[in-house]
Amino acid sequence: MQTIVEDAHAGVVSPELVIDALFACRKTAAIRAAIELDLFTHIGEGKTAALLASVTGASERGIRILCDYLVVHGFLTKESGQYRVTPSTKMFLDRNSPAYMGSAVEFVAAPEILDNFLRDPAAVVRNGGSVGLANISADNPVWLKFARGMGSFTGLSAKILAGEICGWAKHPKKVLDIAAGPGFFGIEIAKGLPSAEIVAVDWTAVLELSRQNAVNAGVSDRYQTIAGSAFDVEWGTGYDLVLLPNFLHHFDLPTCAKLLRKIVASLAKDGRIVAVDFVPNENGVSPPFPASFSWEMLASTPAGQAYTQSELTEMAGLAGLAGVTVAAMPPTPASLILFE
Amino acid sequence: MQTIVEDAHAGVVSPELVIDALFACRKTAAIRAAIELDLFTHIGEGKTAALLASVTGASERGIRILCDYLVVHGFLTKESGQYRVTPSTKMFLDRNSPAYMGSAVEFVAAPEILDNFLRDPAAVVRNGGSVGLANISADNPVWLKFARGMGSFTGLSAKILAGEICGWAKHPKKVLDIAAGPGFFGIEIAKGLPSAEIVAVDWTAVLELSRQNAVNAGVSDRYQTIAGSAFDVEWGTGYDLVLLPNFLHHFDLPTCAKLLRKIVASLAKDGRIVAVDFVPNENGVSPPFPASFSWEMLASTPAGQAYTQSELTEMAGLAGLAGVTVAAMPPTPASLILFE
Repeated sequence: MQTIVEDAHAGVVSPELVIDALFACRKTAAIRAAIELDLFTHIGEGKTAALLASVTGASERGIRILCDYLVVHGFLTKESGQYRVTPSTKMFLDRNSPAYMGSAVEFVAAPEILDNFLRDPAAVVRNGGSVGLANISADNPVWLKFARGMGSFTGLSAKILAGEICGWAKHPKKVLDIAAGPGFFGIEIAKGLPSAEIVAVDWTAVLELSRQNAVNAGVSDRYQTIAGSAFDVEWGTGYDLVLLPNFLHHFDLPTCAKLLRKIVASLAKDGRIVAVDFVPNENGVSPPFPASFSWEMLASTPAGQAYTQSELTEMAGLAGLAGVTVAAMPPTPASLILFE
Repeated sequence: MQTIVEDAHAGVVSPELVIDALFACRKTAAIRAAIELDLFTHIGEGKTAALLASVTGASERGIRILCDYLVVHGFLTKESGQYRVTPSTKMFLDRNSPAYMGSAVEFVAAPEILDNFLRDPAAVVRNGGSVGLANISADNPVWLKFARGMGSFTGLSAKILAGEICGWAKHPKKVLDIAAGPGFFGIEIAKGLPSAEIVAVDWTAVLELSRQNAVNAGVSDRYQTIAGSAFDVEWGTGYDLVLLPNFLHHFDLPTCAKLLRKIVASLAKDGRIVAVDFVPNENGVSPPFPASFSWEMLASTPAGQAYTQSELTEMAGLAGLAGVTVAAMPPTPASLILFE
């Protein structure tokens, strides 16, 4: 083996990536443990290793080993035995930071989600999909946990979307927010447009969270909710704007087209449909996050995926729409999709 | 959030590492699926995506999504819809390569191992250890699966160790291989030293594998086995060399010292004890693999860890030995530890 390695182009052949992938779950476990113990917040306050153990109720040995691991992987630094947060972990994993994304762990690294990937990943590929989340009933409280965890990812794209909508010549008055989750997309629009009324659709348990977030944002007097599946509930007509934030990727193309037809029927004159989603390039392998996202959906849904612009165009056509305009939403990996 | 990101030093503050860690299990799942479907071997043979699906009995959609994900993460390339292996994946994940390490997935990414990390990683830190593998009984066939998977990692360090031993002025005749696993450490010595007799100790199920590997290597006439725990079995006396390959890290320091005392009592005059293990620097945070390894043991064992040279010296002292000499074994992340 050594000889072969040496024969190959220097620096090109290495088991590093393979070993990183084989061991990658250790990293997820470490970051989950650190977030659950609120380690980055405590270290940000300058606590020593001994104090960290006492304040988190953890063993000193456990804290030392976890922190050393986090140093190796770039999440902390260590000098003379004192751990410190990095600028990035201070920003994103210190609970006092407005950019805190630690709660994402409740969704992205939840046991129910990881099980979709790790139970039998080869079977997911063989079957071309997974029962995954479709197996979880509408009233399962896990959806609330997921929606809460999702919030740390969607907050910024919701602000960007609202900025875009507020720039439109004609401000939408009646807005439908489909599969609202934590509700930030509709809520940000309500904050930006004082005349906008939001109707949010999602499972009952999740709507508790979006309603609470609407109260916190001071827009609850213009915030209504309808509980149920977007495919089944009656949400009425006259909408100037219908939002589909991070929703289409859960379903196959014909199902998305069917939903779009239902939405078209509920639009006011000149009403618009806007989706926020991950849109890979036509080659399917860039940019990294959107292109990786179909694997996320393969393992989590029966037939979902991230759609390219040409697939979204086909979807629009099946729904009787003219096409789509896709615009990136930096620094998020999401795109704004305007159905024409 | 956006404002804060912009205010920070450009290029320094990024959620990239955090997101990579949160999503890292997806990479383990993808590489496991690809290895189980033998995708790298098939792609190495030039098969198209459609052929890949038919030869692996998988859905084309599943294959395309998995392969695109593997392109994003550097394991494949894609041009005009045709996937190709990289020099590194051809070397380490094509089943026809002598450096194939795909079988490691059966150990490193086995459900039983991943569960140790993902069930409740914060509890592992709180408790300063885990029941982990100690919960698996000696006759569980999973040990055989683990030993088989471990083989792809230990083969090279076994060759390096044997090279070292063969260079000794006095060649050992009677060699005890403790927790032999796939058996490569003892077997490589037997191959290098035609007068060496190997006695391998491990669980019954695992010894089937080491015996089979001894047969394959043509050294079975000088290969004996003793089934049981290294702490309990009688293995006799007169050993010129006792091997402890990747074993000490499973136990706390006093337990290791106790085992060393037992070993000392079974040595011939001038007999030596050699361990192969991961030895972090005294700072506990370098080199990457050995320093990460204590987290591996925290989650997998009640009290194991990777020991630094000073801890190994303390261990030797407790066993009545003078000390240790530690030497790196590049390109592997392991070190050779010679007890004095």
